[in-house]
Amino acid sequence: METVELAAAREALRTRGPLVHCLTNTVVQTLTANALLAVGAAPAMVDAPEEAGEFAAVASAVLVNVGTVHARTAEAMRLAARSAATAGVPWVLDPVAVGGLAYRTTLATGLLEHRPAVVRANASEILALAGSGAGGRGVDSTAGTDEAAAAAAALAGRTGGVVAVSGPVDLITDGDRTVRVGGGSALLTRTTGAGCALGALVAAYVAVTDDPLVGAVAAHAHVALAAEIAADLADGPGTFAAQWLDALDALDGDALTRADLRDAG
Amino acid sequence: METVELAAAREALRTRGPLVHCLTNTVVQTLTANALLAVGAAPAMVDAPEEAGEFAAVASAVLVNVGTVHARTAEAMRLAARSAATAGVPWVLDPVAVGGLAYRTTLATGLLEHRPAVVRANASEILALAGSGAGGRGVDSTAGTDEAAAAAAALAGRTGGVVAVSGPVDLITDGDRTVRVGGGSALLTRTTGAGCALGALVAAYVAVTDDPLVGAVAAHAHVALAAEIAADLADGPGTFAAQWLDALDALDGDALTRADLRDAG
Amino acid sequence: METVELAAAREALRTRGPLVHCLTNTVVQTLTANALLAVGAAPAMVDAPEEAGEFAAVASAVLVNVGTVHARTAEAMRLAARSAATAGVPWVLDPVAVGGLAYRTTLATGLLEHRPAVVRANASEILALAGSGAGGRGVDSTAGTDEAAAAAAALAGRTGGVVAVSGPVDLITDGDRTVRVGGGSALLTRTTGAGCALGALVAAYVAVTDDPLVGAVAAHAHVALAAEIAADLADGPGTFAAQWLDALDALDGDALTRADLRDAG
Repeated sequence: METVELAAAREALRTRGPLVHCLTNTVVQTLTANALLAVGAAPAMVDAPEEAGEFAAVASAVLVNVGTVHARTAEAMRLAARSAATAGVPWVLDPVAVGGLAYRTTLATGLLEHRPAVVRANASEILALAGSGAGGRGVDSTAGTDEAAAAAAALAGRTGGVVAVSGPVDLITDGDRTVRVGGGSALLTRTTGAGCALGALVAAYVAVTDDPLVGAVAAHAHVALAAEIAADLADGPGTFAAQWLDALDALDGDALTRADLRDAG
Repeated sequence: METVELAAAREALRTRGPLVHCLTNTVVQTLTANALLAVGAAPAMVDAPEEAGEFAAVASAVLVNVGTVHARTAEAMRLAARSAATAGVPWVLDPVAVGGLAYRTTLATGLLEHRPAVVRANASEILALAGSGAGGRGVDSTAGTDEAAAAAAALAGRTGGVVAVSGPVDLITDGDRTVRVGGGSALLTRTTGAGCALGALVAAYVAVTDDPLVGAVAAHAHVALAAEIAADLADGPGTFAAQWLDALDALDGDALTRADLRDAG
Repeated sequence: METVELAAAREALRTRGPLVHCLTNTVVQTLTANALLAVGAAPAMVDAPEEAGEFAAVASAVLVNVGTVHARTAEAMRLAARSAATAGVPWVLDPVAVGGLAYRTTLATGLLEHRPAVVRANASEILALAGSGAGGRGVDSTAGTDEAAAAAAALAGRTGGVVAVSGPVDLITDGDRTVRVGGGSALLTRTTGAGCALGALVAAYVAVTDDPLVGAVAAHAHVALAAEIAADLADGPGTFAAQWLDALDALDGDALTRADLRDAG
């Protein structure tokens, strides 16, 4: 993959301002919405069963994140994923803590039938969703990214889409092609919701790119580059979040040509 | 309207510290609470049907914002609005994304029977609630403020209260009198929940003013003036939010005499 | 109590990184998670009845905060508290606004049977939970800390645990021993969720200390010391929050030896 493709995706995101319908956990809704606004997308959080299907069909992309899922929001997620699939709207699945908890593991596994354009998660979650692992510790991964490479490829084969394994070096694959994205900052893992916001940015990028692998890679690169700038300006995990949003806003297509891509087959 | 009336309202807000009961969407609860604390009010978010009616009756003002409404919170909103109306507690309706989604449009329309002291929304939402438009794009307006002037006046006639149409220049009317408020910053629209927090500040101001038109105008002016200060200090949308809260806190009555008011009939 | 014990608790927190299961209100989830991450703990917010009991049994500690409780989360709280008690996982109760609202008062009183390791609240809430008062004004206390001293001791006698009364000077007792913690900053009360995040930090500390009184005191001292640093760096309540998180992160065991402890029996 060429970084010039990421640059084009970044400019498309700014120009087109996709409407991203987020069904996500209540811990991270604010940061997710602000990250989408920062990159030029339009967030809308709609998670009532009475509305989720209707809204997913008219959105540019949909994010389903099961972080604080319960019966009502699970139903909304099923309706949104089905509606998106029917309407041809790309959707992203973030299977937070899947593997460690039975209820959400069943839910996320069932959602795969609606063929998410991208599954974004940490290594433990990807292993669990692919049926190869027992999950991590709470929301944290206990496995390394490369350990999940085979599971990610297998999962991509099942969904027909892309699987992104986030970690110190991200691994993103569509089963055929695999790209690794380096860079970033450890402060991302000390900011609640940074990974979840990344899932939403993947949705925004996928809405404006023909190739979901490019979209997923662009989102990861954008997040990593912004984190590096923010880490330089921040005095700790508290001041990092605002600086990260500022940097997400400031980075343009040209900046994304400096992404640390490591093609891997 | 004289800006000295806004100054008096600002001082009353600080002196009396009204208790504002917020039934609002989960994306913006934190910023809303912090904005209320910044101006000197006391926020309380209570949205269980078992408690909402009981609490609304003892609050100084109530905010109902349908941003992430679903069956349980819709019931709580109906109970709170009815209780507030019965107890003579002023309440504010923020009909987020009404028009675009059937479920919340029905809910918000039904709530009008409890006669909100103020309806605060963007132009598309006001048009939809007044029965004159189809809503915007997600949470964003696709109509300009002036396009909603007639609908706002008609809606004010129905509720017997004030209707505030937020936009680059805000338009606030009670059907007879109309005031426009200029100033502010585009960064407000890039901070999730700034508009929703404004709705809560309207509730706080209405609790301490005899004339709800003065209260609604004071809240819009306070938000706009604080945004101008924050925009000068911020490096982007991430650092803007904290600066905006600091400025909301710092502005006193004297500062509000510099509001950009444009009387319009 | 010696401040060297607080220093040891601080280092244990960093070394062991306890997994803190939070069932807390939606206004403060983000700040709570970020405060836990800042001090070195691992937060996880799981509040579905389908998952809460399962997760509480494998967590290092559990926080139950009734701030925005409703039927579904009340059920999850009951399951989590019971599961924690059965599994020997320490849990903390934060009875937000108990006394003022009947539904949550009944809930919180019922949860006492599961013997929380710590109850953390303001004076009005402690008085109400102990059956000696009618509650405060919304989420704010209308009583002083010392007024709740006898109620706190009586409540500690009932639970067999610790009761912490947060205020300008915190009062923390296990019925036999009482410690007061001074310092802090009034800006904590102008930041929504600072008190709720303190409850989560109490849970994190109790997970890594043998003596829950030491854990509760360490959490209060850590919060107060960080607030003093943040207040010096902040320009108002908006910029305070991020600085407070930075300071929570930066303070090590040595710093906690400078805590303002006032033994009181």
